Amino acid sequence: MRVMVIGLGSMGMGVALSLVRAGHMVFGVDPRAEACTEILDAGATDAGPNGAAFAEDTEAVVVLTVNAEQVRSVLFGEEGIVRLLPTGIPVMVSSTVSTEDARDFGARLEQTGHLMLDAPVSGGPVKAREGAMTVMAAGPKAAFDTLAPVLAAVAERVFRISDRIGDGAAVKVIHQLLAGVHIAAGAEAMALAARAGIPLDTMYEVVTNAAGNSWMFENRMRHVVDGDYAPRSMVDIFVKDLGLVTETGRTLQFPLPLASTAYTMFASASTAGYGQWDDSAVIKVFPGITLPGDRME
Amino acid sequence: MRVMVIGLGSMGMGVALSLVRAGHMVFGVDPRAEACTEILDAGATDAGPNGAAFAEDTEAVVVLTVNAEQVRSVLFGEEGIVRLLPTGIPVMVSSTVSTEDARDFGARLEQTGHLMLDAPVSGGPVKAREGAMTVMAAGPKAAFDTLAPVLAAVAERVFRISDRIGDGAAVKVIHQLLAGVHIAAGAEAMALAARAGIPLDTMYEVVTNAAGNSWMFENRMRHVVDGDYAPRSMVDIFVKDLGLVTETGRTLQFPLPLASTAYTMFASASTAGYGQWDDSAVIKVFPGITLPGDRME
Repeated sequence: MRVMVIGLGSMGMGVALSLVRAGHMVFGVDPRAEACTEILDAGATDAGPNGAAFAEDTEAVVVLTVNAEQVRSVLFGEEGIVRLLPTGIPVMVSSTVSTEDARDFGARLEQTGHLMLDAPVSGGPVKAREGAMTVMAAGPKAAFDTLAPVLAAVAERVFRISDRIGDGAAVKVIHQLLAGVHIAAGAEAMALAARAGIPLDTMYEVVTNAAGNSWMFENRMRHVVDGDYAPRSMVDIFVKDLGLVTETGRTLQFPLPLASTAYTMFASASTAGYGQWDDSAVIKVFPGITLPGDRME
Repeated sequence: MRVMVIGLGSMGMGVALSLVRAGHMVFGVDPRAEACTEILDAGATDAGPNGAAFAEDTEAVVVLTVNAEQVRSVLFGEEGIVRLLPTGIPVMVSSTVSTEDARDFGARLEQTGHLMLDAPVSGGPVKAREGAMTVMAAGPKAAFDTLAPVLAAVAERVFRISDRIGDGAAVKVIHQLLAGVHIAAGAEAMALAARAGIPLDTMYEVVTNAAGNSWMFENRMRHVVDGDYAPRSMVDIFVKDLGLVTETGRTLQFPLPLASTAYTMFASASTAGYGQWDDSAVIKVFPGITLPGDRME
């Protein structure tokens, strides 16, 4: 298949590499020349800053930009690809966006005779490169069917949520509620341990062997124990994602006490200058403690 | 060894049964006659409502009462056992108590010439019955040494935190911060899913296969999906434990935004009449949603 991948960040690059490896013809799209060079070197058919150049030759599109504004721009903006995309082509939107934005994209694509798969992803950059992402997808059967070869190449697991565009986005946003709260809770627990004079490596070992553990605690609090804040995923990503969570709460008029609190913690960490640090650096919002040294290697 | 177990609730009964099974002579102490009958039937040497009756024959004590007030009463109250306990006997305090209370017990036991092990436990009733608890212990080497046969009988894993009484309590309290926040976060996520029209079993399956998972989410949100609130552990236990967490924050003058929020959620659920329900019933604080039926079997 001839697949256009828009957004060659850590997740999009992984998707593009997995598609090349699976034998597909890949058009990579990213404003950064070095990302285009990387995917060309890996065997992509073509790459460049503007997807319009490849749109007429494309059989499927995967969008993995950072946010909804970028999705809107690359699909429907002045240089957007949809106006040039042959009718019936499926567009898999895998950026993390709100339910409302996903529905908006779906309605616009329907108007122009294109299929949308509302298909956020999870798993992180390593899994993306292995073609082993988790995809939580919603959309019409035709979108699932035509995108089947793409999904097979990039995902270890595809959750078929429903046929209702927006449900994929909702599941991802709710998942991020948990992910963000768990990182912030891990930071709160480790900060309290530091304050109470409990060695952080001991605290880490107890929790990771007990019922208080979470995937995020185990993965991210290791960075705190090591004093290593080189960003695997950044504080600002959770400012964005927990922002989407609280926005969802407002839209549904629904109280989200923990997510709102965690959002405040990540926003505080970002404002204090830690936005580009590893997301475990949300622990820096806690005063009056001494933590293992701040390496940024 | 002749071991007195004070408090034959779900955890204490498990400890007593494990000690019997390991060949120790067990004195069971609980105000409830049916608990005494159960441990006698299982092979305990003696059992009754007052530990004073067995104190002079006891070589080690394990306390697993519900809270610190009960620990204080059974050890140092009018009918307390310490005044009758031979010098040098170790007392393993495994109730969840504050660091301050643990230190107070340690100081009093030191005055009377007894050893204390500050040894909270984790793992739940099933693991307790299997002799497979996790113990997070602090105290002098002599306490660890003399209690070694007891620890071997009841624990799968013993974390030796430090020799400083109070550190075991602190680690347990910090662990409960995570456990409580994770249950409340799981409830918040599932409530939002219900509000957004996402089937709860789908949401559960996605999360338990992704980075948003936690031990508590996987264990407790199953109950929400099944609509089954028969109490394995109750809402009121987390009102107590998160109360200890926030008390610890006050004592150390340390902000605990997530734990304080989660405490409010559990306290609200308790006040609304769900105190004796499974702790996953904290989800009942969320209005405007329909959940799977409320069974209490």
